[in-house]
Amino acid sequence: MGKKVLIVGGVACGGKVAARLRRLDPGAEITVLEKGEFLSYAGCGLPFYVQGIVKEYRDLMSTPIGVIRDTAFFRKVKQVDVHTRHMATRIDRQEQKVVALDLSTGQEKEFHYDELVLATGGSPIRPPLPGVDLNHVYTLWTMDDALAMRATLDAGKINKAVIIGGGLVGLEVVEALQARGVEVSVVEAMDRPLPALFDEEFSSRVRKVLEAKGVHFYGGERVTEILGEGCDVSGVRTDARELPCDMVLMAIGVRPNIVLAKEAGLAIGPTGGIAVNRAMRTSDPHVYAGGDCVETFHLLTGKAVRQPMGSTANRQGRVIADAIAGKGADFKGVLGTAILRLFEFTAGRTGLSVEAARAAGFDPVTVSIMNSDKPHFMPGSALVTLRLVADRETGRLLGGQAFGAGDVSKRLDTLVAAITGGMTIDDLADADLAYAPPFSTALDPLTHAANSLRNNVEGLMRTYSPMELKEKAERGEDFVLLDVRSPEETQRDGKLPFENITYIPLGALWERGATLPKDKEIVAFCKISVRGWDALSILRSHGLENVALLETGVAGWPFQLEA
Amino acid sequence: MGKKVLIVGGVACGGKVAARLRRLDPGAEITVLEKGEFLSYAGCGLPFYVQGIVKEYRDLMSTPIGVIRDTAFFRKVKQVDVHTRHMATRIDRQEQKVVALDLSTGQEKEFHYDELVLATGGSPIRPPLPGVDLNHVYTLWTMDDALAMRATLDAGKINKAVIIGGGLVGLEVVEALQARGVEVSVVEAMDRPLPALFDEEFSSRVRKVLEAKGVHFYGGERVTEILGEGCDVSGVRTDARELPCDMVLMAIGVRPNIVLAKEAGLAIGPTGGIAVNRAMRTSDPHVYAGGDCVETFHLLTGKAVRQPMGSTANRQGRVIADAIAGKGADFKGVLGTAILRLFEFTAGRTGLSVEAARAAGFDPVTVSIMNSDKPHFMPGSALVTLRLVADRETGRLLGGQAFGAGDVSKRLDTLVAAITGGMTIDDLADADLAYAPPFSTALDPLTHAANSLRNNVEGLMRTYSPMELKEKAERGEDFVLLDVRSPEETQRDGKLPFENITYIPLGALWERGATLPKDKEIVAFCKISVRGWDALSILRSHGLENVALLETGVAGWPFQLEA
Repeated sequence: MGKKVLIVGGVACGGKVAARLRRLDPGAEITVLEKGEFLSYAGCGLPFYVQGIVKEYRDLMSTPIGVIRDTAFFRKVKQVDVHTRHMATRIDRQEQKVVALDLSTGQEKEFHYDELVLATGGSPIRPPLPGVDLNHVYTLWTMDDALAMRATLDAGKINKAVIIGGGLVGLEVVEALQARGVEVSVVEAMDRPLPALFDEEFSSRVRKVLEAKGVHFYGGERVTEILGEGCDVSGVRTDARELPCDMVLMAIGVRPNIVLAKEAGLAIGPTGGIAVNRAMRTSDPHVYAGGDCVETFHLLTGKAVRQPMGSTANRQGRVIADAIAGKGADFKGVLGTAILRLFEFTAGRTGLSVEAARAAGFDPVTVSIMNSDKPHFMPGSALVTLRLVADRETGRLLGGQAFGAGDVSKRLDTLVAAITGGMTIDDLADADLAYAPPFSTALDPLTHAANSLRNNVEGLMRTYSPMELKEKAERGEDFVLLDVRSPEETQRDGKLPFENITYIPLGALWERGATLPKDKEIVAFCKISVRGWDALSILRSHGLENVALLETGVAGWPFQLEA
Repeated sequence: MGKKVLIVGGVACGGKVAARLRRLDPGAEITVLEKGEFLSYAGCGLPFYVQGIVKEYRDLMSTPIGVIRDTAFFRKVKQVDVHTRHMATRIDRQEQKVVALDLSTGQEKEFHYDELVLATGGSPIRPPLPGVDLNHVYTLWTMDDALAMRATLDAGKINKAVIIGGGLVGLEVVEALQARGVEVSVVEAMDRPLPALFDEEFSSRVRKVLEAKGVHFYGGERVTEILGEGCDVSGVRTDARELPCDMVLMAIGVRPNIVLAKEAGLAIGPTGGIAVNRAMRTSDPHVYAGGDCVETFHLLTGKAVRQPMGSTANRQGRVIADAIAGKGADFKGVLGTAILRLFEFTAGRTGLSVEAARAAGFDPVTVSIMNSDKPHFMPGSALVTLRLVADRETGRLLGGQAFGAGDVSKRLDTLVAAITGGMTIDDLADADLAYAPPFSTALDPLTHAANSLRNNVEGLMRTYSPMELKEKAERGEDFVLLDVRSPEETQRDGKLPFENITYIPLGALWERGATLPKDKEIVAFCKISVRGWDALSILRSHGLENVALLETGVAGWPFQLEA
């Protein structure tokens, strides 16, 4: 008789534990209890199913060669005993058994275990708002949610939708809805989209895209009521306005499903997830937990965090299987990496923001840059904006944000590895990244970012982020903004929305630089602030020392420009 | 008076030194001598100009906003004095001056320096073959080369071309020529394409693409003569055949331009490049060198290597400028990273191969895997093959190769950072890479590769590479090849070219596995050998212990399949 391993939850982490454990231990008796109907589906693919990019919902639960991962598949291929529509209701740790309700029959059943795995996942938060139970008020979390939402859209009756929550889950659905002909509004309690992931500068870039695409974004507003006509939703009321609509998506967050664990007396961590050690073991040595229901820890700070991502759940599932098989693997922690496709743009982040780095005791330095992802002469070349955060003393990279129509995903994963590997700014600046014109510029945007940060740290270059410049102007400080673009560019691409701009093209600056006031600070910029950087050295040669650069230039300005 | 800095060569490294130094030191007197007509152009973009993807040659020498980097630009914007068509002929280190020939006037001129920078580049090797001076025998190295080659193609008289050399430069031009309607043959002295970059397995994948695209590849053949009719080329004779053609591209390698340095008595390194220290200083403390003319060192082994790449040249240029400005930066070394677009495929590599790792004193472990770059349900999902090389004892990542129609470039740069940061296999397996369906699978192919290598190192999984399996079969060893794909897949996707294949779909293996011979080794596989991995554990549960996996399966088989 093999070891009895019981897994509660069969979507991401649970499915991974079962598959890996089967490979490690052909004799183990593996049982999975899943409260829903569907197994091992790609939850992150749901928005693409709603949009219609994924044609059949079965594609989300099939293997790459098209075999559906259902109970028969698990039985036949994995020798894993799966019970769908079985909701675990109680853990008896003394007796090492779980009581579950068979949702099809209403029967209670008992499942004994030697080792128990809790992969109970998370649930979307559904606040107790008036009207929350009206028709066409959705969350998008399970396959059932997606099926219902798509059926409603397919019926063709939805014209306006309100997404409550401007986080990752909410924004992932914006494009799906708009592609189906729906006018979309997003209401977010914080003043900007993706507030938990990005700083204000990068959030503002996301907001600019939303606005350019005709999506209404209402930041800093709280929903007070969901309005209805009969049983159907008819609008959303916020503390500032009323938004008529015929569909609502609630996307204000996810909480870990911990009731089962909590009632069994297992330790819950400070963030509200099930507490586990690095082997993903709970406070009971025979109970493991992983995926959206646990709290894990940050690779750089060691602090408890929650990271409800399919990728994390899969990694943790592997660790659990290894631990149960006696292989003793340790989970190495997370960086809070996230990525989002938004129309033709990509936004991503990893590691610590400046604020988080400071809170963790680092002395953060940071810079944003903008550059082409490929040489300008290659078709499809597009811009990316990158922010790097590093520790001043050690130079160690701590985090970054990335945004643009160019290849953001490559730079983000490269940065993830750089941070994980403990690389410094200098290491990144010299990293032998792959160069050929179809893939990058001779100096990759990441190299530029590292060089720029090095310039900053060494005091060669003083910069303002767009936010800092905006605040500086709003404080009414007296300084000169120096635009070194050509008049044609200024005409074509627009102007920064400030009064105090002096226009001198870079080529004329050696001659005309001397005309600039010596007693005022000068902040130079161009399209992406590469020429702006040249401008600083020209100004210095004119004896002007109080000079600085506006990071990311006009093209990276995260707010509206003037014509 | 500022410091007099003289730079010999104004393409990649030289241009970078000038630009960076100007930013660091507005007062420096910077002079550039360039023997050609063109400055700071993107040499790596030449194949795309020949192909016509880059419309105007000026695009290769303009800034992203379309300003041509000519002498007027350098003077006006950078305050750098550039002399084109000036060939440096002699360095007088005593007097700190360089003698140059003005190619336009035939005049000799002298240029004094405080600090000298040699950025003399490299030259394509033109072997003394009979016929090498015939019309339409090209190298593709300078802008002039590209202009001549494109003009010839534009005239529409070229039907067949032979590329001598199957390395990076040669293969970069294959697609360009074929896109212009030219029938292309490649002759390579080694038995496979890209022999300096890839092992036989990955080289074979490249060869398979060439053959599938109708490119003739002749490996292991030496060119003995270039044939002519009158002044024009008419064919290429190898030691095995004659290939009629009306264009020849010589792409057998690049040698560093060191004559100037050598005659001045500067130290030349063992690889034939100018010897420099980590600050890029030559054996003369007032002479620096960088780019294609120097030898640099490998980040992992510390050994002297040459890496004639535009990206390396730019990084070194920055170090030189910093050193001259007294900032004392060190160049951190290279990994031999390279990447190539070949039709819809990408091939790349970095770090040490198994052989190089062994030669450097490591105990290398390696595995290849194949996986989708995105979930199969996302449009554009495509396969990538990855090989990882690591050190058995420390688990430290040492190198990798990547190939496929999927996003290879992201995985390669991520691996570059992982190696540079000193990450281990375990670190990579748990790295918090960015996941969303448009960008990767929940477990990225790199994660799969790391997991697979971990399985190998821990003895959970024994694998054969395609090469090893082929050699095993060629040795006549007695073993069972077990194909666990469905009959439909086998029908549709083809079979491995071996006799000893047993077909049992994975789903039937629990039942039928017992029928397999217990006294023979069994090597399992499927499309990409993920189900093959499941098969191993099923076989083990049947008491079969002598089991192994064929890496990368049928889809990754680098040779021809059978129908």
